Amino acid sequence: MKTIENIKEMQNEILARKREGMSIGFVPTMGFLHEGHMSLIRKARAENDIVVVSIFVNPLQFGPNEDYEAYPRDMAQDSKLAEAEGVDYLFSPSVAEMYPNEPSVGVVVQKRTSVLCGKSRPGHFDGVATVLTKLFHIVLPDRAYFGQKDAQQVAVVEGLISDFNFPVELVPGETVREEDGLAKSSRNVFLTPDERKEAACLHLSLEAARAAIESGKKNPETIRELITTMIENQTSGIIDYIEIYSYPELEPIEELKGRFIIALAVRFSKARLIDNMIFNL
Amino acid sequence: MKTIENIKEMQNEILARKREGMSIGFVPTMGFLHEGHMSLIRKARAENDIVVVSIFVNPLQFGPNEDYEAYPRDMAQDSKLAEAEGVDYLFSPSVAEMYPNEPSVGVVVQKRTSVLCGKSRPGHFDGVATVLTKLFHIVLPDRAYFGQKDAQQVAVVEGLISDFNFPVELVPGETVREEDGLAKSSRNVFLTPDERKEAACLHLSLEAARAAIESGKKNPETIRELITTMIENQTSGIIDYIEIYSYPELEPIEELKGRFIIALAVRFSKARLIDNMIFNL
Repeated sequence: MKTIENIKEMQNEILARKREGMSIGFVPTMGFLHEGHMSLIRKARAENDIVVVSIFVNPLQFGPNEDYEAYPRDMAQDSKLAEAEGVDYLFSPSVAEMYPNEPSVGVVVQKRTSVLCGKSRPGHFDGVATVLTKLFHIVLPDRAYFGQKDAQQVAVVEGLISDFNFPVELVPGETVREEDGLAKSSRNVFLTPDERKEAACLHLSLEAARAAIESGKKNPETIRELITTMIENQTSGIIDYIEIYSYPELEPIEELKGRFIIALAVRFSKARLIDNMIFNL
Repeated sequence: MKTIENIKEMQNEILARKREGMSIGFVPTMGFLHEGHMSLIRKARAENDIVVVSIFVNPLQFGPNEDYEAYPRDMAQDSKLAEAEGVDYLFSPSVAEMYPNEPSVGVVVQKRTSVLCGKSRPGHFDGVATVLTKLFHIVLPDRAYFGQKDAQQVAVVEGLISDFNFPVELVPGETVREEDGLAKSSRNVFLTPDERKEAACLHLSLEAARAAIESGKKNPETIRELITTMIENQTSGIIDYIEIYSYPELEPIEELKGRFIIALAVRFSKARLIDNMIFNL
C-alpha cells in the first residue's frame, strides 16, 4: 500500500493505472476506520483492480458549532487496517493541500437537503459535495462506495453524480452493526457506558416500526409516535428528528407505500447518532 | 466526424478512445462558429489525438433579459466548418438532454465575478461553471481551449479547474480579429452597417491605451478616461464598463505595473461587444 499526501502525485498515479486499463474503486472516508468502512473497502476490493481509500476530515462540511476539532483521528491504526484489507493507495492530504487558498468555486446542493440531518446542518452537504467533486477528480474512480447508514448523503451523492454527469458508479453499502444492533460509527466512542447501552434502542425502535408496518399500519404519524415513545422512554438522548420520506427524493408522504425511508437522529451527551431503515412496499 | 446528441454515448466513445491511449482536446462552444472558434479548433487539432467540439447554447448562463432565444444558431453550417477542420466528434445535446429535470446541484463562482461582465450578469458565471463541469465529465478532455477574448471567463475557468482539481489543462487562444481590429464574435451579425464601422474603435482605443502606457502613463484613471473619450466620441455605443484590474485575480490596482488587464464592454442597438488587452510590464 502506498500512502500519498500530494494531490498531483495521487492524480498522476491513478492516470497511469487507468492507462494500464485498470478499474478504480474508491472509498472516501474521514478516517478512524470501523467495521462500516471495512465492509465498503472489502466490497471495493472484490469489484476493482485498484482500491483507493481517502482519509480527510473535511472542514468544509462541519458547522461552526460542530465537532471538527474533536472528530477522532488515528492515522497509524487506519493505515494498518487499510493495508490489511489490500488497499492499494491511502490518500491522506492535509487541509492546506486540499484548500490552499480561499476557493473561487464551490458546489451547492439545492435539493434533498432541507430535511433530516441537512435541516440542522446548513451548508453541510455543500461541503460534502464540494470535497467529493475534488476527490472524484483526483482519484478518478469507476466506482465510489458509500454507507447506506447516511442515507441522505447517498441520496445527495446520487444527485451529484447524475446531475454533473460524473463517469462514476455509486455503490451503496449496507449499514454494519454491533451485536446489539447499534450502527457502527466513529462517534460511538464518545458515548458514556450507560449511553452505549441505551443507544441500541435506535435500531430496535426501527425494528419495532418495521413490525408495526408489516402488521398493516400505513400512517406515518402513528409510526413516528411509536418510535418517539420508545426512544424517549428507553434512552437519555434528545431526539433531533424522526422523519419519514419518499426515497431517494426525500419528499413528504401521506401514506406508507412504495419506496420510503424512516430516519432518525438522537443527541447524547457528547455524540449525535443517526440510523435509518429503507422500505420498499 | 461523428455528431452525437446523447450524453452517455459521448461519454462512452471518449472512454473507449482514452482506453486506446488517445489524448482528448476539447473546444466548448455555443455554436455559430466563427474564425475565433476555428483558431481554437486548429490549435486543438494540432495538439491532441482526438478533437471534440461541443455546441450547446446553455440557458443557465443567460439572464432573464438576455438574448438566449435570439442567440444565433446554424447547426448545418457549424457541422460543415467543424468537419473541414478535422474535428472527430461534434457533441450537440438538447437542453432536455443536459438538464432533464430541475438539478439538485450547481456550481457557484465566489470570486472574480463581481467585476467586468460578471457585475452586470449575476449568475452568468455560475451557469458557465456548471455547464463546463458537466461537459468536462462527459468529454473528459486532457486539454480545453478557451478564447482569451473573454478574459474573465478564462480567469473563472482557471479557478474552476484549479480549485476542483480537474485533470484538465486550460489552453487560452489569442483573440482573432477582423481586418479593422474588431474582435470576431457571433454577436457581430447584430450590428447595423454604421455600428459595424464604429465598432473598430473598441480595439483602436485599447491600442491607444497601450501607446499611452508605453509612453509612461502609470495611472489607471488617466487610461480609462482616454478610452472613454475615444469610444464616446467615435461610436454610438453606450459604455457598459471600462475597467483595469490585476490579472488573473481581477482585483483593483492603483498603478499600472505587473500583469493587468484593460477590459471593456459597449452596448450597440442589438449587440453588446467586449474586448480586452492583457499587459505584463
